[in-house]
This record gives sequence, C-alpha cells and structure tokens, in this order.
Amino acid sequence: MTNKINLSLDQIYDLSFKILFKYGVSEPHASAIAKVILAGERDECISHGVYRLGVLVHTINQGHVSKTAEPKMTIDDTSIVKVDAQYAFSPLAFEKGVEELARKTKQVGIAALQINHCYHFSALWPEVEIIAAHGLVGIAMTPSHAWVTPAGGNYPVLGTNPLAFSWPREHAVNPYVFDFATSAIARGDLELHDRTNTELPDNVAIDRDGNITKNAKAVIDGGSMLTFGGYKGSALSTMIELMSGALLEDLTSQESLDLDAGKKSFPCHGELLFAFDPSKFGLGNIAKTTASAERLFKSITDQGARLPSQRRFAARKRSQENGVFISKHIYSEIQKLLE
Amino acid sequence: MTNKINLSLDQIYDLSFKILFKYGVSEPHASAIAKVILAGERDECISHGVYRLGVLVHTINQGHVSKTAEPKMTIDDTSIVKVDAQYAFSPLAFEKGVEELARKTKQVGIAALQINHCYHFSALWPEVEIIAAHGLVGIAMTPSHAWVTPAGGNYPVLGTNPLAFSWPREHAVNPYVFDFATSAIARGDLELHDRTNTELPDNVAIDRDGNITKNAKAVIDGGSMLTFGGYKGSALSTMIELMSGALLEDLTSQESLDLDAGKKSFPCHGELLFAFDPSKFGLGNIAKTTASAERLFKSITDQGARLPSQRRFAARKRSQENGVFISKHIYSEIQKLLE
Repeated sequence: MTNKINLSLDQIYDLSFKILFKYGVSEPHASAIAKVILAGERDECISHGVYRLGVLVHTINQGHVSKTAEPKMTIDDTSIVKVDAQYAFSPLAFEKGVEELARKTKQVGIAALQINHCYHFSALWPEVEIIAAHGLVGIAMTPSHAWVTPAGGNYPVLGTNPLAFSWPREHAVNPYVFDFATSAIARGDLELHDRTNTELPDNVAIDRDGNITKNAKAVIDGGSMLTFGGYKGSALSTMIELMSGALLEDLTSQESLDLDAGKKSFPCHGELLFAFDPSKFGLGNIAKTTASAERLFKSITDQGARLPSQRRFAARKRSQENGVFISKHIYSEIQKLLE
Repeated sequence: MTNKINLSLDQIYDLSFKILFKYGVSEPHASAIAKVILAGERDECISHGVYRLGVLVHTINQGHVSKTAEPKMTIDDTSIVKVDAQYAFSPLAFEKGVEELARKTKQVGIAALQINHCYHFSALWPEVEIIAAHGLVGIAMTPSHAWVTPAGGNYPVLGTNPLAFSWPREHAVNPYVFDFATSAIARGDLELHDRTNTELPDNVAIDRDGNITKNAKAVIDGGSMLTFGGYKGSALSTMIELMSGALLEDLTSQESLDLDAGKKSFPCHGELLFAFDPSKFGLGNIAKTTASAERLFKSITDQGARLPSQRRFAARKRSQENGVFISKHIYSEIQKLLE
C-alpha cells in the first residue's frame, strides 16, 4: 500500500467540503455533496469518490451551474413533492425533498419526489438507501447524456439511465439495494477502457457506422453504447427517459447533451424517486411481508448467488473500521485543486 | 389459409364466453376473461388467445380456482386500492379495481392497485393499455412460478416475472407499451422448443447440474431458465418478487409453484399495478411533456429502430378489419371443450 494514503472518513468529508467551499459552493451545497463523495469513497465506488472532485470543479468552472441557489420545494395536496434545484447540484435538492417524501408516503402508502433543473451529481444508491432508512421501499431513476442507441438503431438518443431500488431489512444492517445503468457498460468503464487502451467486452457498443466494436475510442468518437439485455433493456431505458425526462417537463438525455454542447460538464436534467410504505400495502401483517422477503433472499444466497451491493457493503465495513486508501496520484491531483 | 378458419372478433368473444360459462364460470368472470382472450387473439399473441382456453379448463377442473367468487374491493384513505380476488381468476378483479385506481391517481398524481389471491390469467399489456386509455402512465408486475435461477445461482427460485409499462399518446391511436418477461426466454417459447424438439438460443437456460444447455427437455426436467440481461435482469426479477409478492402479503413464485404441486394450473398469487397522472407531474405545461415524449419516439423510429408492441398493433389493425385466423387444429381442440 505504499502508493496509497490512508484517510479517515471524516478526512474525506473535510477535504471534499474544503475544495467545494474554496470554489464558491455554498455551505449547505458543499456539505450535501461532500456526504455523497464520502459515501462513494467509503463503499469503494471509486468513480463516485474523491476522484469526482476534479469533474465537479471542471463543471463549476464552466460557469453554468449555480453554486449557491437554494432548492425550492413545492408541496401541494398531491402525493408528488417537487423540488426545483434551480440549476445547482442535485444532492441538496434531494436532502431537502426526501423528508417530505417519507412523510407523504407514510400517510398514503405511495409518493413521488420530482427534482427539476439539477446538475446531477450522485449515484442513486445513496439516495434509495436513505429512503430504506425511513423503513420505506425506494425507486430512483434519471436520464443522463445521450450516449446509448436504442435496440435496432445505430446512433445514440438514450442516456445510460440508471435505475435503483431499495428494500428495507429489519434484522440486517443493510437494505436490499441495486443501482445499475441500463447501458450494457457504464460510461466510466468505457472511458477507462479508452484511457488504458484495452478491449471492450463483446456486444456492448457500436462504432459510428453502426458496427459492433471492441474499440473504446471508436465508441467515444461518434459511436454509441448499447443497452443491457437487448430490446428489453432498451424499453426500460426509454421508460426512464419518459418518466424522469418528459414526465417532469425536464430534459431528456439528448436535450441534456445538446445543452452541454461538448463542455463535458455533469448532465443537467431532472430526477424521479418513488417511495412505498410496506405497512400500508399488504393485508395488515407486516411481519408476513418481512418474513417472505427474507425467505426470498435466503433462497438466493443459499445457492451461492449474491445479492446486489454485497461487495459495496463489505467495503463499507472495512472503511468504517480502517478508513479508506486513496491512490497518491489521485490525492496529489486533488491537492492541486486547493492551490 | 386452407388450414385456418376465419372468425370475427365477436365470434372469438362468444366462443370463449360460452366455454367458460359451460364449465361453471359466472357471467361476470366469463365476460372479463373472454375480453382478455379476445385481446390476445386480436393482437396475434397466440399464446394468450383461444389456445389458452384448454389450460383454463384444465385449471378449472383441478377444482381449486373459484368460478364465481366476487372480487372484494377495499378503499381507504391511502392511495392503494386493494382487490381480493378470493381465489378466482384475475381479470374481473382488475376490471373492478382499475376505475378506482384511475380516480385516485387523478386526485393525487400516483396510486397503486393491489390484487390478492388471484389465479393469474392475462398478459399485462391489456391492463396497462387500459390505464393508458385513462390518460395515465401505467406499470404492472406479477410473480409467476419459480422457473428462473438468480444470476450466479443454479436452481430456480424466481418466476418469469413480467414487467409492463404504458405511456398514453394523444395524437396516436396506440400508447407506447412494453410487456416483457424478466426471464431470458418466455415459458411458452421454452415449451414450444420442447414440443418441436428444436434447440434453444444461447445462454437462456441451464440443466439440473447448472450447466448452460440448448436442450429444452433438460430445462423442463429439473433445469432452470436464466434471467435476461444477467445480474441486472436478476435484480429486476427479484424486485418484482418483492413488490408483487412479499409487499402484497401474497405468494412469491416459489410459494405459488409449491401450492400448485405439479398440477400445472395457472399460478396463484397477487399482482401490483401503478398509475401516474402526467398532468400532476411536471411543471404545469402538459403540452411540453407530450411534445418531449413524441420527440423521443421519433428519435428512435427515425433511425429504423422499432418501438415495442408495433407488431402487435399492426396485427390488431388487421384483425379489426378482417377478423382472425385460427388454426383448424386449435379450433377443433376448442370445440371438444364444448362437447
């Protein structure tokens, strides 16, 4: 570990906060974003950890994102909590809306959180985990940038459009959580293959002529990623564009990419979350619901199959005990942001 | 077409109704089921058409399904409409609940329909299309029978767990609709490969030892289907077990298969549907939502990619003009049910 530096989780938070604050991000925003970076680093989702601070600063330097705008929440007699992020980063808008989402959900069993006009910075799993911590089932989805072609097509119009789900587990520390891109490969993985000049897996992307390619550069240079699972993944990805783009009167992945105009900032669009109260569904015996879910999980793990996020939860445990280990290269890049 | 017989859509309905009624199914149930069979035959989804009457009669003859129980609806101050099918077939329970689902959704923007204790008979697309006909976005999901192994496992605990989605389109006759099994191959297709002794596609199923196989018989005889899209499809399928099984305090696919105990009846479990009112989401300009969705659809079809269900809609148009063409073999099998 000589090329690594050991930091506590508090140090990760402080470092992230300090950099954001230095670049003019207001205290509430810097705090909300630093918590998300902390979660990413803690769970060893490196691409969502301190590594992202460089892209954050790049986005800030483009001058389009608001560093200080307060999210504006609208509550009415519907079950939809609406938060306008006013072109600031997303985490504070989520923080502001999630309590009200939980409150509404516990009243009527099901509610939605609609976030508009945010520069989206966060994996979706930290958010659905917070919904699970309220004892609720959570779903989250967002468009992204149009890098993915629909099944049967040959140029990109869909985003990597992640979908996340959480199910609270009473007798376990961690909820059942998944969070996956509906693209056949994550954008970050594609970029890593480009940087390291390594071959892509089979059938994840096409070049500008619509032919399957293993060359990451050919994908980035006018080609397109494919959806996971063929036409089914393509249908799901289209659903995510409709639900978290069109339905919210916010940008689709294509419109977000057009707005970015090559600046490689974070995408600017909306996000849609749902919460469900298990105690309102069912037939009045929540213990039966819990037992049924636990039997299902056991029937999966008993045969050696993994539940999603187990690798992340193992990393979390390690990090909570020993802190995290950052590559010295990344750490020195981050230090430069403070100069 | 000499081996086919031409019937009008009314004749399909009448034939289905007559057979169900003969086997003791009450008039409201027979009518609701006959409408679903009509929709299947009309859209050339043969496996959901009159072909199914044989399996229906088989299920009825097992004696477990109620032929007459009235669905019991519970409405309270939550946004969850609950219909207990009381161990009858599902279509009447859906019919009974969907109006109330639409009413609640138009009040608060989002609502759920929980159906319990039904022998599930219906594809999900006719149901989400009815939600779309109310001007609402629809989602539907059910467990089935445990025929599918989770990613990384080697025996079945998940069902084929279909997921359906509909988006209403103002200026088009048909909504945007998808309805797919989360298994890598449909159960009906697997059975067809078995009957015709043809090879399965690559990577859709394993034999009893957990090895990938193209032999349909080896799958049915102690093997298992895989999920579509690897671990992502497996996560989705697990979500469907949780949401439309555990959450409803109804049977998971494993429990439904155990209950069936080899009788090969329709699965007995619950179903979960959601509806969303586009006029309550967004920012008050529904025309913007509609235009955004239509631009997305155009960006898909402009590149030669198909929207889901287009084949079905083309068949529907043909059937509405010319009626349907049933194979004489199937027709004579059905006629035997009337003897």
